[in-house]
Amino acid sequence: MRESLPNEDRQSGRVYLVGAGPGDPELLTVKAHRLLRCADVVLHDALVSREIVALASRRAQVIDVGKRCGAKGITQAEINGKMIRAARHGLEVVRLKSGDPGLFGRLAEETNALDAAGISFEVVPGITAGIAAAASFGSPLTDRRTSSRVVILTNHQAGAAGGDWSNLAHEEGTFIIYMPGRDLAALRDKLLRAGLPPDLPTLLVSRVSEPNQRAWASPLGALGAVPVLDAPSVLLVGRALGRADEQVRLPWLSAAGDEAALRPSRLG
Amino acid sequence: MRESLPNEDRQSGRVYLVGAGPGDPELLTVKAHRLLRCADVVLHDALVSREIVALASRRAQVIDVGKRCGAKGITQAEINGKMIRAARHGLEVVRLKSGDPGLFGRLAEETNALDAAGISFEVVPGITAGIAAAASFGSPLTDRRTSSRVVILTNHQAGAAGGDWSNLAHEEGTFIIYMPGRDLAALRDKLLRAGLPPDLPTLLVSRVSEPNQRAWASPLGALGAVPVLDAPSVLLVGRALGRADEQVRLPWLSAAGDEAALRPSRLG
Repeated sequence: MRESLPNEDRQSGRVYLVGAGPGDPELLTVKAHRLLRCADVVLHDALVSREIVALASRRAQVIDVGKRCGAKGITQAEINGKMIRAARHGLEVVRLKSGDPGLFGRLAEETNALDAAGISFEVVPGITAGIAAAASFGSPLTDRRTSSRVVILTNHQAGAAGGDWSNLAHEEGTFIIYMPGRDLAALRDKLLRAGLPPDLPTLLVSRVSEPNQRAWASPLGALGAVPVLDAPSVLLVGRALGRADEQVRLPWLSAAGDEAALRPSRLG
Repeated sequence: MRESLPNEDRQSGRVYLVGAGPGDPELLTVKAHRLLRCADVVLHDALVSREIVALASRRAQVIDVGKRCGAKGITQAEINGKMIRAARHGLEVVRLKSGDPGLFGRLAEETNALDAAGISFEVVPGITAGIAAAASFGSPLTDRRTSSRVVILTNHQAGAAGGDWSNLAHEEGTFIIYMPGRDLAALRDKLLRAGLPPDLPTLLVSRVSEPNQRAWASPLGALGAVPVLDAPSVLLVGRALGRADEQVRLPWLSAAGDEAALRPSRLG
């Protein structure tokens, strides 16, 4: 924090809950870029890329508040407390979240706490990784011929509702599955049980938009043979991904295990 | 186009299919902003806001290729032809599409034509209006307690697949419905027939992120009484929108027709 000033002379600061996009600093919004450069305090998730965190002003206090699996980390209440205290000191706070803050970002937990504390805030949307993953392969998510809807899910969901995929079969859509996890055979079985056909194209993309982005294309039936890629990753499933498959230039993984995890080819 | 130069001395240009976001120029990505300022040719949809089109360089050729309902407009083949010819002249072309190019943006029609012509291209994702609409009200799209998935649909869809909403009832999700159209009573009936409960919160948002953004909150059962707002608009439906409803501060439209279409309150 900056030198303390008498609280009573100043207004409360504001909290911006900002989407950092998938990783490439150029996929920040202009607004996110501006807010990040002006913030007094930046509280960022572990998944936000270093290049993006480095855009913060030198005078800003930058805090990694990422909650890592298994590690004894910071609690949600502690994150909320840091935001609230900084705003009460009159500071401008950027709460930087990977992707879009409203998608699997625990946004409500944080906005409810800010509301309860009377702290003003604004949510700035970001490019979500699943949409950026398709774009990186020049692939659409909807297509008038093959896909009329997009369904965004996570494979890592507490509660019964998140686990009920029994109706997916009726969807003529493209599925974006966050946190596909390491057991791709189990995920394949779950999707097949939901009624999706085994020949449906899938595309597993790791570290979307970062220099070390990797991807594997596979028909759904062969997803169990796809190597686990580094987290974070996202699995796209659907007929609209035909082009993505061409571009990764993988044979439908008949020879699983080949070292063929390619970066998106830079066309031209 | 710029002064013609001997074609044989130059490489082919490139086409960038770029998401312009929902309307606010600050919701462009940094990359879209840079490409727009450097492009030789900008081909934009009618829905892209003036402020964004105005960011193009003065020396750029800027062409509105919007296909408007009812109007005798430019065809898809003509748009494709313009992109291809400009790229063959060695020019850098930005094909600017509202929102994200991969979502209901006819991306495949354009990339297929570019592929067939051997023109290199790149897709740059954009903030889609439905995600920006929720953010503008500080609302999440998913919530661990109420919504585990997001379904993106359009109410204006050719083909049988787009019209089959019979399985929506099973979704514990948030629905983003593009092009809700002018007959909100018919849309309400379609959603109720799909099995969604009449007390589900809905939020109709027009001109998302623009200075003249307007919104109405209503439970689904009363959607027929909501006034039609200017296009483009998007309808959000789902329990996660509870906060959005609070913030619009509309009574559940018992007195439909009241002039209560509010801009999102600027908090603080």
